[in-house]
Amino acid sequence: MTEEKRRRGRPARKAADEGPGARERILQAARAEFAERGYDRTTMRGIARAAGVDAALVHHYFGTKDDVFAAAIEVSFEPAMVLPQILGQGEAGIGERLARYFIGIWENPATRAPLLAIVRSALTHEAAAKVLRGFVLRRLLERVAGELDVPDPRFRAELAASHMVGIVILRYVIQVEPLASVDPEEIVRMVAPSLQRYLTEDVDGRPTED
Amino acid sequence: MTEEKRRRGRPARKAADEGPGARERILQAARAEFAERGYDRTTMRGIARAAGVDAALVHHYFGTKDDVFAAAIEVSFEPAMVLPQILGQGEAGIGERLARYFIGIWENPATRAPLLAIVRSALTHEAAAKVLRGFVLRRLLERVAGELDVPDPRFRAELAASHMVGIVILRYVIQVEPLASVDPEEIVRMVAPSLQRYLTEDVDGRPTED
Repeated sequence: MTEEKRRRGRPARKAADEGPGARERILQAARAEFAERGYDRTTMRGIARAAGVDAALVHHYFGTKDDVFAAAIEVSFEPAMVLPQILGQGEAGIGERLARYFIGIWENPATRAPLLAIVRSALTHEAAAKVLRGFVLRRLLERVAGELDVPDPRFRAELAASHMVGIVILRYVIQVEPLASVDPEEIVRMVAPSLQRYLTEDVDGRPTED
Repeated sequence: MTEEKRRRGRPARKAADEGPGARERILQAARAEFAERGYDRTTMRGIARAAGVDAALVHHYFGTKDDVFAAAIEVSFEPAMVLPQILGQGEAGIGERLARYFIGIWENPATRAPLLAIVRSALTHEAAAKVLRGFVLRRLLERVAGELDVPDPRFRAELAASHMVGIVILRYVIQVEPLASVDPEEIVRMVAPSLQRYLTEDVDGRPTED
């Protein structure tokens, strides 16, 4: 089958595609593609090409482009691995652990570029916003909220998330000084008490326990 | 001079342009143009056409496209009018007043649409980000910081701003529930203590005065 023919028709699956690293390779390629092209101009075929696999395999592992997009977000946050660590150590210090985790993801250049692209896509394309909304709700906020012993736990989790999102925007996107250059631990130190209050104190500011 | 000719050459200034409302009309047109087309595709000529004035008058009043962009942001925030009210009443309640002012601008549909467009532009175009950075720094954050009696007042002002920006992103852009539908006063009530801490308390959480 010629390269031209394969581009037009349904691509043949190659034996090399099926290796155990294929799924991970596709995810890395997807992050790079979304980062470089944005949500709109990223295609399943382009992701497949960048990963060195057939488009059929991308469909096989992930389904639609939106599903790949959601998986590309998730691989950056690793919620299944990290959230239990943050939430499982009790209420004391939860604000600090959450702030450090979130800032840490953005301080890592390997995760920052694709995440920036994802955030930009979500802010400019309703389809991408919908994916992020679904992902943020299902995977991150609900898990956090499920561990909280406060009224309106999801609202509280969203308030904490909003603060971290805003810091990301001002520090990494708009790059307002001195916030853009300050030591990340300085941000954690200042922000942790705000997150702690949202996640563990009742409306009038009294701790719900401890 | 024919309409076709005027489009090609430097437009003649009409007597009607010079009315006292021309500047305001240009600003309204600029906000609408930036909102509809985004930063990149908005032109001085397009703004002039929408305002019913000659492009030369837009240049006369504002200079460059970036200057119009900055002015379009500023007219939404009205910092000259509003900031003295927020800052001039002492430290007690400053977090609540700032939160209510900021949310209020976004709850008003007349200011929300153009602001959303401006935020989207700043998040996706470096030129727009640079304008917002300059504006945010010069006009808003420095004025707020100038009134604060805390260490690193600009950093503190930016932390407060970051929280409000993040709420705007989650509530109005990504529209995460329940944050997207909750009564604005509920947000003010929850967020005000965080802003108050940034703007008036020292690093260890002790009030700097009162």
